Amino acid sequence: MIDPQLETRMANAIRALAMDSVEKAKSGHPGMPMGMADVATVLFTRFLKFDVAQPHWPDRDRFILSAGHGSMLLYSILELLGSSVVTMDELKQFRQLHSKTPGHPENFHTTGIETTTGPLGQGLAMSVGFALAERMLAAEFGEDIVDHHTYVIAGDGCLMEGVSHEAIDLAGHLKLNKLIVLWDDNRITIDGHTDLSTSIDQVARFKASGWNAEHVDGFDREAVAAAIERAKASDKPSMIACKTIIGYGAPTKADSHASHGSALGATEIAGAREALHWPYPAFEIPDDVSSAWHDTAKRWIADREAWEARFAAREHNVKSEFKRRFANILPGNFEAAVEAYKRSLSDTKPKVATRKSSEMALDMLTAIVPELVGGSADLTGSNLTRGKPQRPLTPDDYSGRYIHYGIREFGMSAAMNGIAQHGGFAPYGGTFLVFSDYARPAIRLSALTGAPVIYVMTHDSIGLGEDGPTHQPVEHLAALRAIPQLNVFRPADAVEVAEAWQIALESRHNPSLLALSRQNLPVLRVQHSSENKSARGAYLIDGPETADVTLFATGSEVEIAVNAKAKIEAAGRTARVVSVPCFELFFKQDEAYQAATIGNSKVKVAVEAAIRQGWDAFIGNDGIFIGMSTFGASAPIEALYPYFGITADAAADAALKRLDSNT
Amino acid sequence: MIDPQLETRMANAIRALAMDSVEKAKSGHPGMPMGMADVATVLFTRFLKFDVAQPHWPDRDRFILSAGHGSMLLYSILELLGSSVVTMDELKQFRQLHSKTPGHPENFHTTGIETTTGPLGQGLAMSVGFALAERMLAAEFGEDIVDHHTYVIAGDGCLMEGVSHEAIDLAGHLKLNKLIVLWDDNRITIDGHTDLSTSIDQVARFKASGWNAEHVDGFDREAVAAAIERAKASDKPSMIACKTIIGYGAPTKADSHASHGSALGATEIAGAREALHWPYPAFEIPDDVSSAWHDTAKRWIADREAWEARFAAREHNVKSEFKRRFANILPGNFEAAVEAYKRSLSDTKPKVATRKSSEMALDMLTAIVPELVGGSADLTGSNLTRGKPQRPLTPDDYSGRYIHYGIREFGMSAAMNGIAQHGGFAPYGGTFLVFSDYARPAIRLSALTGAPVIYVMTHDSIGLGEDGPTHQPVEHLAALRAIPQLNVFRPADAVEVAEAWQIALESRHNPSLLALSRQNLPVLRVQHSSENKSARGAYLIDGPETADVTLFATGSEVEIAVNAKAKIEAAGRTARVVSVPCFELFFKQDEAYQAATIGNSKVKVAVEAAIRQGWDAFIGNDGIFIGMSTFGASAPIEALYPYFGITADAAADAALKRLDSNT
Repeated sequence: MIDPQLETRMANAIRALAMDSVEKAKSGHPGMPMGMADVATVLFTRFLKFDVAQPHWPDRDRFILSAGHGSMLLYSILELLGSSVVTMDELKQFRQLHSKTPGHPENFHTTGIETTTGPLGQGLAMSVGFALAERMLAAEFGEDIVDHHTYVIAGDGCLMEGVSHEAIDLAGHLKLNKLIVLWDDNRITIDGHTDLSTSIDQVARFKASGWNAEHVDGFDREAVAAAIERAKASDKPSMIACKTIIGYGAPTKADSHASHGSALGATEIAGAREALHWPYPAFEIPDDVSSAWHDTAKRWIADREAWEARFAAREHNVKSEFKRRFANILPGNFEAAVEAYKRSLSDTKPKVATRKSSEMALDMLTAIVPELVGGSADLTGSNLTRGKPQRPLTPDDYSGRYIHYGIREFGMSAAMNGIAQHGGFAPYGGTFLVFSDYARPAIRLSALTGAPVIYVMTHDSIGLGEDGPTHQPVEHLAALRAIPQLNVFRPADAVEVAEAWQIALESRHNPSLLALSRQNLPVLRVQHSSENKSARGAYLIDGPETADVTLFATGSEVEIAVNAKAKIEAAGRTARVVSVPCFELFFKQDEAYQAATIGNSKVKVAVEAAIRQGWDAFIGNDGIFIGMSTFGASAPIEALYPYFGITADAAADAALKRLDSNT
Repeated sequence: MIDPQLETRMANAIRALAMDSVEKAKSGHPGMPMGMADVATVLFTRFLKFDVAQPHWPDRDRFILSAGHGSMLLYSILELLGSSVVTMDELKQFRQLHSKTPGHPENFHTTGIETTTGPLGQGLAMSVGFALAERMLAAEFGEDIVDHHTYVIAGDGCLMEGVSHEAIDLAGHLKLNKLIVLWDDNRITIDGHTDLSTSIDQVARFKASGWNAEHVDGFDREAVAAAIERAKASDKPSMIACKTIIGYGAPTKADSHASHGSALGATEIAGAREALHWPYPAFEIPDDVSSAWHDTAKRWIADREAWEARFAAREHNVKSEFKRRFANILPGNFEAAVEAYKRSLSDTKPKVATRKSSEMALDMLTAIVPELVGGSADLTGSNLTRGKPQRPLTPDDYSGRYIHYGIREFGMSAAMNGIAQHGGFAPYGGTFLVFSDYARPAIRLSALTGAPVIYVMTHDSIGLGEDGPTHQPVEHLAALRAIPQLNVFRPADAVEVAEAWQIALESRHNPSLLALSRQNLPVLRVQHSSENKSARGAYLIDGPETADVTLFATGSEVEIAVNAKAKIEAAGRTARVVSVPCFELFFKQDEAYQAATIGNSKVKVAVEAAIRQGWDAFIGNDGIFIGMSTFGASAPIEALYPYFGITADAAADAALKRLDSNT
């Protein structure tokens, strides 16, 4: 038990470091760390099982700073705990190029940070994935080696964002009782008092979603500690509304949005130092406070060592599996199984929708890759995301590996980010491609953080037919290809689907997205090849190395391109077809391969039932594009492709006409 | 008062038409219309003030089918009411190309439909805008001519989507008591029973957000009517949870997801006909039922005529203003004011951020365009979206024209769609450009429906600096340009900002998005021109018609391009700079203008602090692109542009090197 006065000084150390770092940077958010310093001190000194020297210990508690703008709260604490990464020098470099202390916490950049936050609401939504991964892993490996909590600090913004609803509804339903959310209830947002824009009763709201929820005084550390104890003892997830004052200590800017998002200024800081009885110069921590924080850091070493002893005592195969899972290494039989499966496809040539061949791939994969955790945003029978071996995960059975995420595309995607970042699982989840828009903020975070999440997005064009333009993606392939570090696959047949799954699962540092058809497609890769051709991003699928016309296409339109090739040949010209399952991978190939694949045909045509944006890289801005330039329409697929002019005839005619005009 | 047995038959007519249309189309969603037919019958026969012959009557009640997949509910009712657009022939053409009965309701396609739904949650979120527009208009024009309700039918999916939280929190806060939501509480989603994915107490949830909420039996029409009466009498928005059975009447598929999204089949339909005592052939409505629905249709004619009399009695200037507003015609002094303002900018040359010059434009515009309703998702002081004359709108004062939307980018955008589609207002709202991802599903609906919403998105590049990659848009310009029917503007200076605002306000059938800088930018248009040059999409801003090098740039990078031009000239070569404020408008220009503007320079360079995707249309796939290919980083702007190589030196050097290699 730390002396209360010393503990106050420990909290004030956070406040001072936050003020001073923001002041030095002339940029940042001092208000939240100053308001929540006492709550955070209670959490880190009394509860958070975290060994700063071993930040990757699998059974550590996870701490998610959903209110990511308050990054100095986290950086200050890491420094005070003695992090070798977030040092005092780094605090002095807050928000500078290459520092370990960027404006918002970045787990891909700074060791000791669990996830990347800043886009509001998503830390909370990812925490559901963290907490779920813990329960799933415990169900699989036992609570003796998996038994930790997920703690979240969330702000008003997090709770106003829509994704918070999806997150808390799902967490309450799944009874994730080891998820504990500390809400910084300071009643201030950027525009002013929360009265400007909300009147919600958050405690009642969380209770309605199956949570514990209660109010505490965020400066009463014993009350905070007691509330956390109650939360830990509960069979539900818990939200603790911590009444605080933003910028606590600042003489004129406390309790005002003036302390939210900019440096306080020298006068205000001097006043705060006085109010907080903190006479030390900037970036100086007195020895007693420093020692107390270092003692806190040491507190969990024994727990970690005890865990290591328990882990060492487990069966060899359990240990190796656990390590394999946290190392993100696929099972040894993975490659051979994919190879055999691909061979069977080239043999049997199933003419099925790529969503269906994805399901066939999943039937095989889920049997051999136990880390696969699937799900859908309530479109299981449409996305075909459930592998045969998968049982549903329920509040009473966390050993299921299929999650009914509900109609929550964004919440699902954020949860998958959390599952992936927790470690131990390879999450994938489905929705319609058009609803990638709903999930987009989370897809971006997958990409930014390098979380190996796999998005299974079906009904990938006007080919979905009658549901009409609200459900027909047109701009989505381009918009998704625009995201850095995301591999977007649009496989043309069952073989390319298998290859896309293989690449996605082997990509352990970036997310992948599979755009899959509703309609049936023939197998075009009728000759088995051991090589994963899709890994080249684009390759010659039909025809000679050189020809009068090169047709580039993806997904369901590769068949159209192949048919167009036949029509061009019937007219006495030559043609070749390049399948382009993944733009991103193609542009990573060497120049010679790119040049040979694109070829030097006089006429280049791209066929994709989507917009042109991005295709000029293949066909040039004078190339022929057969695709969409408007939103779609509600009609059967048989009517839509001709209506929008996406046919083999249209492609062949345009190519031949261009050839004639060129000669 | 309609005889209860007849009223049952009126409801069954909806059920039969829904079954039969879906069956004929072999595609669609019969379950929801069959479950909600009684609720809908009560609503349309007893409450909804709607003259089917005058579907644009401004004071009609608005009906929003948020569960848009149940479109046959709405189409059936429109047909039964005697719509001249949605006829029995159109029901027989359900989901066929060019029919007035597409898979999901499309207000831009079918008269009598208030808005476009299908993407779940958004109908509910738009309804907040509809209800708010009604209150704002009533505050301005008086309740004698503006006094109507907004009714919503929402499904489980709508209430699971995150945007529902943003919507109900905002509606509760704003006390929109004329908003009444009927929840189809059938406990079935596509994956199965709602128990699979949710345990929320929706009534408690709505109450926590300041709503009335209660349960009723959705087949007890008197109970439904009584609940609607209570809702109408309330000072809060109301949610009525109507317990129903999906596919009601179907012998084996009722109460199961089997009746949700596909045709029931002949046997099931025959069984339903028997169960419902509905012996009539498909698409046949018996006379008594037909007459009863036509009587319902006539019920509101007197109300409309009374309204017209009240309206006719109002002052001339009120009437003309009201008509102007619903006709989407700008005030007569608009053009002259913009012209004078543009002249003053060219004279005074304010070197300010484009977000600041947008604020300056708004100070002017909000004084002369009373239909402008502004707001921000809690970034007012950053987006600079509040015009000087604007007072905040509050629950107690709907005459304010500035809305604190809270931290709800999606909810704000959907509400703006609702405001625009209600009529009478020109909504605009702000957030950071990177958070366009959060709003993207609503931006898409703005574009699809042609709602003239204006998105003000600031901090439009790595130029925002220290907040880092979570806050720095990189792919967003490309991703937004990908959306059909959306004009994306990235103005280079205060003059282009004024021109973008002018075009956006004059565009009454498409949304616009302004991407604005955080950092200061010089006025480059120092010579006043009456012509709105931005309306060309791209134009020569500096240099000769032909030159060795053409530099294309947008926004903050036009200054860099101008500086690069000077460096190229210093090296003895010629250069010209094309500003590209709007891709979409440029590609609508005639070919001659496009060709002349792009020019025939040997070397073409594009400069934009974003990804290349889309730029090949200007520079070709062999052109030089100076921009981003990765996510950004946290650092001051002065460090970031050089770090990512986006400088005048880099652009000039690359151009000169290419020129040298070409000769």
